[in-house]
Amino acid sequence: ALLVVLQAIDGGGKDSTIKKVFRGVNPQGRRVTSFKQPSERELAHDFLWRVHQATPEKGEIGVFNRSHYEDVLVVRVHDLVPEKVWRDRYRIINEFEHGLAAAGTRVVKLFLAISRDEQARRFRSRQETVHKRWKYNEADEQERTFWDDYQEAFADAINETSSEESPWYVIPADNKWYRNWAVATILVGTLREMDPQYPSHT
Amino acid sequence: ALLVVLQAIDGGGKDSTIKKVFRGVNPQGRRVTSFKQPSERELAHDFLWRVHQATPEKGEIGVFNRSHYEDVLVVRVHDLVPEKVWRDRYRIINEFEHGLAAAGTRVVKLFLAISRDEQARRFRSRQETVHKRWKYNEADEQERTFWDDYQEAFADAINETSSEESPWYVIPADNKWYRNWAVATILVGTLREMDPQYPSHT
Repeated sequence: ALLVVLQAIDGGGKDSTIKKVFRGVNPQGRRVTSFKQPSERELAHDFLWRVHQATPEKGEIGVFNRSHYEDVLVVRVHDLVPEKVWRDRYRIINEFEHGLAAAGTRVVKLFLAISRDEQARRFRSRQETVHKRWKYNEADEQERTFWDDYQEAFADAINETSSEESPWYVIPADNKWYRNWAVATILVGTLREMDPQYPSHT
Repeated sequence: ALLVVLQAIDGGGKDSTIKKVFRGVNPQGRRVTSFKQPSERELAHDFLWRVHQATPEKGEIGVFNRSHYEDVLVVRVHDLVPEKVWRDRYRIINEFEHGLAAAGTRVVKLFLAISRDEQARRFRSRQETVHKRWKYNEADEQERTFWDDYQEAFADAINETSSEESPWYVIPADNKWYRNWAVATILVGTLREMDPQYPSHT
């Protein structure tokens, strides 16, 4: 299986990347999961519980729109748990992803990096464009004031959880066609390396 | 949460221990999961996938009748995966259980140890007693020929995955009342240590 983890700051282009890059893939073989604020039930389990459930099975491509990384990003920026708890999660995440790798799941993590100015432009465009207005959320403007905290949290998460086995790729994402091309290129390269085969019937 | 993992050889008394020890516990707060042969869907994921899903949530007691340990026991005895794969699982299991502990789940692992003679007596009694006959399974007699392999696999699993955080207890289980008393005593002691509190409403 291939698991693609997409992370970005609000307005970074996660939804649009999924739409542009993955709509060419046979829907039967892919599974997109969006991780929103955890439910009460999800919060009653360890943070990897809901994520593990959603991992792709053999032969599938799974796409995570946000992921377990929120538990060291938004959770950290807003002090939702003590520092010791989120710091410990880097190791827990690494071990979890190693377990997936041992079972044959390739994990590829993509961080869509946009500039602060581009974020402002996109929020404005959501406000001003009729067919984008549903995406506009005042809470996002509030989150924007935590820009530097998020950058620091992203940088630490990427440093602490990048490995040869499951690397992070930082994609310059101000320019949409470049972002889409870069993501597609990385995924095609990964699939070529994985070299998946049709099931044999011997 | 408290997670109780029960492992034993066939005839070791897992079902009967659950019936005797846990029937006094409020059913709303406990969740028993029996892990049988994995389904095709389960096999298409890493071996911890189905197990992680079944872990108890905050405030619950979860009981596993067999568990992820089958993936280093029956799987090893019958060479279902290469040695490197099951050996790697000891570490993956330790890391998984550590992740549960970090989220506040206490994991207690119980191995019900019976003698080879006692196993033979129990199989005979299943054959000869009307209300036990449904439990008799010829395949179990077949498994019995792997006795020594199972003992070795159990011993290794216990050595490799016992920690102060989530210990293994080996329960002498030829004698049923002693077994039940020992299991209950361990669990009561663990719960006392955990000292669970009612939710506060401040």
